[in-house]
Amino acid sequence: MGHTFPGACVPHGLVQLSPDTDTVPHNVDRVYQADAYRYCAGYQYDDKTIVGFSHTHLSGTGHSDLGDILIMPVTGDVKFNPGTADNPESGYRSRFSHNTEISRPGYYEVCLDDYRVKAQLTATERTGVHRYTFPNGEMQRILLDLTHGIYNYDGKVLWASLRVENETLITGYRITNGWARENYTYFAISFSKPITNYGYTDRETPKYVGFWRKFDLQNNFPEIAGRKIATRFDFDSNASAPLEIKVALSSVSTQGAIKNLQVETEGKSFDQIVAEASAKWEKELGRIEVTGNDAAKTMLYTSLYHTLINPSVYTDTDGQYRGIDHNIHQANGFTGYTVFSVWDTYRALHPLFNLINRECSADIARSMLAHYEQSVHKALPVWSHMGNENWCMIGYHSVSVLADAIDKGLDIDKKKALEAMISSSNIDYYDNTSDYKALGYVPFDKNRNSSSITLEYAYDDWTIYHTALKEGNSSVADIYRKRAMNYRNVFDPESQFVRARRSDGTWKVPFSLLNTSGEGFIEGNSWNYSFYVPHDVNGLITCMGGEKTFIRRLDSLFTMHLPDEFFAETEDVTREGVMGNYVHGNEPSHHIAYLYAWTSQPWKTQYRVREIMNQMYRNSMDGLCGNDDCGQMSAWYIFSAMGFYPVCPGSNQYVLGAPYFPYMKVELGEGKYLEIKADKVSDKTRYVKSVRVNGKPYAKAYITYDDIKNGAELTFEMSASPNKKRLFKEGEKPYSLSE
Amino acid sequence: MGHTFPGACVPHGLVQLSPDTDTVPHNVDRVYQADAYRYCAGYQYDDKTIVGFSHTHLSGTGHSDLGDILIMPVTGDVKFNPGTADNPESGYRSRFSHNTEISRPGYYEVCLDDYRVKAQLTATERTGVHRYTFPNGEMQRILLDLTHGIYNYDGKVLWASLRVENETLITGYRITNGWARENYTYFAISFSKPITNYGYTDRETPKYVGFWRKFDLQNNFPEIAGRKIATRFDFDSNASAPLEIKVALSSVSTQGAIKNLQVETEGKSFDQIVAEASAKWEKELGRIEVTGNDAAKTMLYTSLYHTLINPSVYTDTDGQYRGIDHNIHQANGFTGYTVFSVWDTYRALHPLFNLINRECSADIARSMLAHYEQSVHKALPVWSHMGNENWCMIGYHSVSVLADAIDKGLDIDKKKALEAMISSSNIDYYDNTSDYKALGYVPFDKNRNSSSITLEYAYDDWTIYHTALKEGNSSVADIYRKRAMNYRNVFDPESQFVRARRSDGTWKVPFSLLNTSGEGFIEGNSWNYSFYVPHDVNGLITCMGGEKTFIRRLDSLFTMHLPDEFFAETEDVTREGVMGNYVHGNEPSHHIAYLYAWTSQPWKTQYRVREIMNQMYRNSMDGLCGNDDCGQMSAWYIFSAMGFYPVCPGSNQYVLGAPYFPYMKVELGEGKYLEIKADKVSDKTRYVKSVRVNGKPYAKAYITYDDIKNGAELTFEMSASPNKKRLFKEGEKPYSLSE
Repeated sequence: MGHTFPGACVPHGLVQLSPDTDTVPHNVDRVYQADAYRYCAGYQYDDKTIVGFSHTHLSGTGHSDLGDILIMPVTGDVKFNPGTADNPESGYRSRFSHNTEISRPGYYEVCLDDYRVKAQLTATERTGVHRYTFPNGEMQRILLDLTHGIYNYDGKVLWASLRVENETLITGYRITNGWARENYTYFAISFSKPITNYGYTDRETPKYVGFWRKFDLQNNFPEIAGRKIATRFDFDSNASAPLEIKVALSSVSTQGAIKNLQVETEGKSFDQIVAEASAKWEKELGRIEVTGNDAAKTMLYTSLYHTLINPSVYTDTDGQYRGIDHNIHQANGFTGYTVFSVWDTYRALHPLFNLINRECSADIARSMLAHYEQSVHKALPVWSHMGNENWCMIGYHSVSVLADAIDKGLDIDKKKALEAMISSSNIDYYDNTSDYKALGYVPFDKNRNSSSITLEYAYDDWTIYHTALKEGNSSVADIYRKRAMNYRNVFDPESQFVRARRSDGTWKVPFSLLNTSGEGFIEGNSWNYSFYVPHDVNGLITCMGGEKTFIRRLDSLFTMHLPDEFFAETEDVTREGVMGNYVHGNEPSHHIAYLYAWTSQPWKTQYRVREIMNQMYRNSMDGLCGNDDCGQMSAWYIFSAMGFYPVCPGSNQYVLGAPYFPYMKVELGEGKYLEIKADKVSDKTRYVKSVRVNGKPYAKAYITYDDIKNGAELTFEMSASPNKKRLFKEGEKPYSLSE
Repeated sequence: MGHTFPGACVPHGLVQLSPDTDTVPHNVDRVYQADAYRYCAGYQYDDKTIVGFSHTHLSGTGHSDLGDILIMPVTGDVKFNPGTADNPESGYRSRFSHNTEISRPGYYEVCLDDYRVKAQLTATERTGVHRYTFPNGEMQRILLDLTHGIYNYDGKVLWASLRVENETLITGYRITNGWARENYTYFAISFSKPITNYGYTDRETPKYVGFWRKFDLQNNFPEIAGRKIATRFDFDSNASAPLEIKVALSSVSTQGAIKNLQVETEGKSFDQIVAEASAKWEKELGRIEVTGNDAAKTMLYTSLYHTLINPSVYTDTDGQYRGIDHNIHQANGFTGYTVFSVWDTYRALHPLFNLINRECSADIARSMLAHYEQSVHKALPVWSHMGNENWCMIGYHSVSVLADAIDKGLDIDKKKALEAMISSSNIDYYDNTSDYKALGYVPFDKNRNSSSITLEYAYDDWTIYHTALKEGNSSVADIYRKRAMNYRNVFDPESQFVRARRSDGTWKVPFSLLNTSGEGFIEGNSWNYSFYVPHDVNGLITCMGGEKTFIRRLDSLFTMHLPDEFFAETEDVTREGVMGNYVHGNEPSHHIAYLYAWTSQPWKTQYRVREIMNQMYRNSMDGLCGNDDCGQMSAWYIFSAMGFYPVCPGSNQYVLGAPYFPYMKVELGEGKYLEIKADKVSDKTRYVKSVRVNGKPYAKAYITYDDIKNGAELTFEMSASPNKKRLFKEGEKPYSLSE
């Protein structure tokens, strides 16, 4: 259920070239259809067949899209449809075995058993590179199915077009409708051998054919277009050398795709590109050095790998890209990124980038500002990809991403950023923002996710307050300081839980703490969501009736039993993703284990975090307990392994937990390193006895970015039992808006 | 049947803003459906209702397309569908009366009776400008129906998108499939008053809605998209001032449309734009001064007007445009044009431009070369519009357009032109070019238009021969001189008519001289097409058995009776468009009346041409005898009125007929003029007694471009009876490849 894919890509590449083991059938009409969920990344390990290799994949989402430009090497008769898993012979798909699969960063290999074709894949940022070794003497044929999409349905492809430019180069594009409402994928494909024959089928009879009737369009006619196009390209069967194919993508034009192809691959052999992809990964994965057992190290690097796929590069090599207004723009002075799953990633992924991937992170912030400038709503991204806004999930959390970028000193336009943050939080027609501003909360009778939204708006507003304060804009800061306290308006004083509230101020009756559906929450019940006040934990403790109740509630969350009927309502989570009633497979609870730091029992964080890491991240094929969510699940793991976590992104603080590994060395850039030492740490020796920073004893429950940004050494003395004397006074506890 | 439109445009403007009185219904599947033909230009005089005002119209075609971006001012309840002519109340269309219609160059006015709205329209090159005066106190509403198209069917609109940028500006685009296979129309619309409310309907349920469900999309949501979108915009009912709307188009982007809007209309009132449009027409129509009776003058200026609509400007004000490869290109150093109905217009329209509109003509040639460079076929335009190739009709006649441009000294890249001409004539898969090259003719068993194609290829090849000769490339000239003689291969020696011939060399049996269908011809029967050897009339005379037969055949053509059963097979022609068996409503015969010049009876040209002008061009609502064909019918009229005609475009010669008017003064540019004097000319005094050029007696059957290009005075002495002594010796007769 991780919804990751095994194919080849480079860090943050536009191209993710990966096998699709199935897709949502063509006759599906509703988005929540089970198969649509199952095939978010195109690959399920249990499947026995591969439909083909497509060039774009989301990593870890709960919604389906992409799977653009499918290529399948075949022999024998032409079959233009994919066939079914039950009856692979009915189409062009092939059986395969995991025994022949090799998957490593930047490289994927498999044998397509039905054709006895060895498929090897690698990639550059904007190009997928294929090498197919056919059986000796067999006809070598490539299918390029422009109807294929991971989430497919009748009418998904608005238009597709293809030109055979010469005997080794084809170009084309398709415009699709889907989760991305209007997605333009241009491509340029070069072959290592000349095409001998080619043709296509159009699964739909075009309504207007006109004088194209003049031609034998189906055979060797170099201009192919339509709504449901699948094409074939034949190559000399006598040539025993493998067929190599380079497929460059662009959001701009076929010219852009050709340029990307040339800049990134011209004159390079398949093996050379594999070596370069490997080196790129080595460089990025090498930012963290770690000692520990192999399974744990594998989990750490797998996590690091998963943080480096989305967001993905979106600009062409010359800086052009298609904006949210669907016009072509030039990114001046930055590389543009796309695939912003912000509701997930504002929590830990962007903060992680701000620590170890700062150039990329600044470009992501710049991309968000460009999105804002192009948006007719004057809104920052909510869930955007490929020049589209999907509006998925809640909040306007890009304000948090920008606040954290500014707090961590990234070189972005602060004035523009604050303007964008203010604008994004004042779009009256967006998810009851006007009600929220008028009432101080989103009323349940107007929005089924009302309480979740209120809590998250309040945190988002805190990030605007915090940024305005830093930028010296006190009038704006005042407004947003007030808005940041709105979380209190959904705290039911009777139950001391967050509860659905109506426009007239009354509370929903009856009220369930465990249901997610129908209670004003999304992807989390009241038990979990009631802890979502990351910017004012002191205030939260008060709302809950004081520290004693607060600790008891935290303890219960991890230990109580969540009956199946309520588990069924959590989304995107396996049973392993739940600990008691704590749901780690979804994001709203990711900070909760760290909340003990505000209490007199901070060692419980040390215990719980390691439990979560051991139970919910496993070095096995089904090792993730829920969708990886474009790297957020993995970023949580990396922070937690380092021994701290950004509970309140935008603030300068990381709340301390305990390191997972005896030694980590983290590259911060510009030759600076963070070393984290925890000599004797193990599952048994998981408690922190004391902490030293750069050799000096350290008495706070948090460290700040400023403490470590120029390099630092954190030394944790570990022990088998909690150090209950390591308590934090006021001023040593982490940040809270209410002191 | 002229298929012209009455709306507002400026010379060669991208925008033709005109009322659509009906369209092809949405459920039509076949292109030749009667209504599709009837509404090529969107307007039929007999209709009683106006559906709305759309911004793009073809002028005089026999195929339907365009009608983009329909605007209709309405009052009362919202109706999002156009309704039917029989029951206008069923939709948003309105009744109207011709009494309220005013149509003059650059301006159109009508009253929409059902809404009591006075509609006034004008235009710039790239902007349609509307002024609507509503009844006092009535709700003012604009419908913008993005599903509307002149040729419509389910699935025509591939995608449409609209943004409300602010209260007076909307932008958007739509991508359509039709005669133009893939047409991108971007727009920017500014209103003189703020929008108070707006909304839309989508006539199709989108398959994937996603999180757009969050919003109340139907009301005041500024981002609208889908396949079948119709929108409404409301304005304050109390504001009695007229509502003015400016609609700029672009093939590039909404940014491009906004820029076009600003450059062409910013700060200009409706009245000012009307005045400017009027001045532009005055300048272009003022190139010809004429004396004569009002009806004849009206016909001349109507003709001149119709030559100045298509081709149309295609580049944005900044030179960007969408190419035939659908990528965005920059026109460097020229204005790009589109709508090339080349099979029609190579005959007289481009030669006319080369005489009186040379800058525009050079840009047209440059646009054709850009098309060639972007074409995957490496082909010059056949029938192209809006970045699409429709492949309509036969031949590769752009070679003629370029040959004539070069012959007339236009400043174009001659080397590139010759390369493009050679390439376009060697595309083996294009309309049996490979068979033509192998056999010397297109065989009837492989192509139903075989003989027409052979004759036209042979002429086209002559233009390449002629150009190569001028450019000093004798090896290419030799090849094409041979190809130019291929017309002989379809001349049946027995009948001495052109006849369908099979691959094995045998002639079709039975053989009909009068049928068009099924005999190897298109838009002309053997009687007419057998005269189509414009580059080798001497050779043609020989094929027909000598001058005596040739003259007898010419005489018969104009006087014989064409029974109804055969007339029914002529396309695009009214009964008035036929004189005997001579079909003027179609193009293949346009040169025939001038062929007497090669014989001993040249005065018959003088008689026949005036007959054709009088019968087939009438100053009445149905004054054209067939589709105007993007100006070709009208260009024929203008040349013939001047007293000469380019029988063989590409050669330097115009064959002399007789002037229609006593006096014409034609501006050649750069302060040079051609004066044509024919003092006593009238229907009775239609024969030429003698000719003087610049005062000196002139003894040839033709004049050359070089004779007149620096200005000249042609004086025709007219008489009531033919001057049978005015005969032409060898050397005085017009050009023929066979001497």
